[in-house]
Amino acid sequence: MTLEAKQAVETADAVVGYKTYVKLVESIIKPGAEVFSGIMGKEVERAKAAVTKALEGKRVAVISSGDPGVYGMAGIVLEVADLEKAKTPIQVIPGVTAATAAAARLGAPLVTDFAVISLSDLLTPWNLIEKRLHAAAKADFVIVFYNPQSVGRTKPLAKAYEILLQYRKPETPVGIVRQVGRKGEETIVTTLKELLSCEVDMATTIIVGNSTTRVVGKRMVTPRGYDL
Amino acid sequence: MTLEAKQAVETADAVVGYKTYVKLVESIIKPGAEVFSGIMGKEVERAKAAVTKALEGKRVAVISSGDPGVYGMAGIVLEVADLEKAKTPIQVIPGVTAATAAAARLGAPLVTDFAVISLSDLLTPWNLIEKRLHAAAKADFVIVFYNPQSVGRTKPLAKAYEILLQYRKPETPVGIVRQVGRKGEETIVTTLKELLSCEVDMATTIIVGNSTTRVVGKRMVTPRGYDL
Repeated sequence: MTLEAKQAVETADAVVGYKTYVKLVESIIKPGAEVFSGIMGKEVERAKAAVTKALEGKRVAVISSGDPGVYGMAGIVLEVADLEKAKTPIQVIPGVTAATAAAARLGAPLVTDFAVISLSDLLTPWNLIEKRLHAAAKADFVIVFYNPQSVGRTKPLAKAYEILLQYRKPETPVGIVRQVGRKGEETIVTTLKELLSCEVDMATTIIVGNSTTRVVGKRMVTPRGYDL
Repeated sequence: MTLEAKQAVETADAVVGYKTYVKLVESIIKPGAEVFSGIMGKEVERAKAAVTKALEGKRVAVISSGDPGVYGMAGIVLEVADLEKAKTPIQVIPGVTAATAAAARLGAPLVTDFAVISLSDLLTPWNLIEKRLHAAAKADFVIVFYNPQSVGRTKPLAKAYEILLQYRKPETPVGIVRQVGRKGEETIVTTLKELLSCEVDMATTIIVGNSTTRVVGKRMVTPRGYDL
């Protein structure tokens, strides 16, 4: 967590967020501050609650995990505020997104150009995701997957695997990090060919190396191109 | 800065980094700690110095701005340590990379799939950068440019502009942030067609919206797809 984010939570009169994330910051919430926590899928409801409370004059902190601007709540809060013509000041406080947090655990896979793709087709049509998978794989981007699969949604990762193998060698290094920065964190450096046999859930970040990524010691490093 | 990064600098016996970045953390360096600061382009030398000092038993902090794993020093330190068969423990501490820091200032342009591309062809061949520009633009990724131009290197941005216009409307929102998180920070929300008339240097991050990105108030937001 950044110093800036910590301070924002500590000074908030109201804290709004997905219940799992609110729990993670519970210890730094100001005594007496109002807490509005909700379930996954109720993002619009939370954004509306946050704007309403801010319009009542409260200093509100909306919590996302990682960076609120990467598949997080920043956009929807700005959109709801605009829709409701709320003139309350809104500040987006950046954080450490799962892509770079996972990269740090794995080594240094992202020191060159990379693409970030969510494999969840709940809010993005699958044909667009597929198009992005082809484009990123073909142009040799290192690729980071968010939301790779859930209990009821395993097809996207299987399909991504199939597409990646059209452009990358089966031996391409792949890093898998579960629960990055949280209790129970697990890190695996494996290869593309083993991807589907690894345990992957919604709290997993996957990084697929490009054609130059290699395993250094037990870590995944994409050479930046320096002459050593 | 994250709490973890702050603590690492505060407890280091030696701090190694590009001189501009070392200056930014000067106030939290432990009294008596050794400081090895160097110029741009001497990254290999700094990585070697860091590994040497660590092998002497010192606790060394290598500084990057933003996130050390995104075009930063993480990779080269791991590579140098491997090359020198140094068994010293190395921890990569993630930070807030310029992409998400700039996104936060601009609004929420990155709440969907995005690609990060450095326009510097010092370490990456230009034909590969060009291939990535086409791929990212065609597949409707929001695109973040690092190192967009320097005094002596203005062609890459002009070429990127030309490629982007083959796929995106001239009215596509573009955000430009200079010196993000530092003194003299400047933020501009403009359009693709105005890109080349804006002041852009090496300390600038540029975010080009995708086909759905719009201006909300004075900010740049890419809708995530929620039904409001």
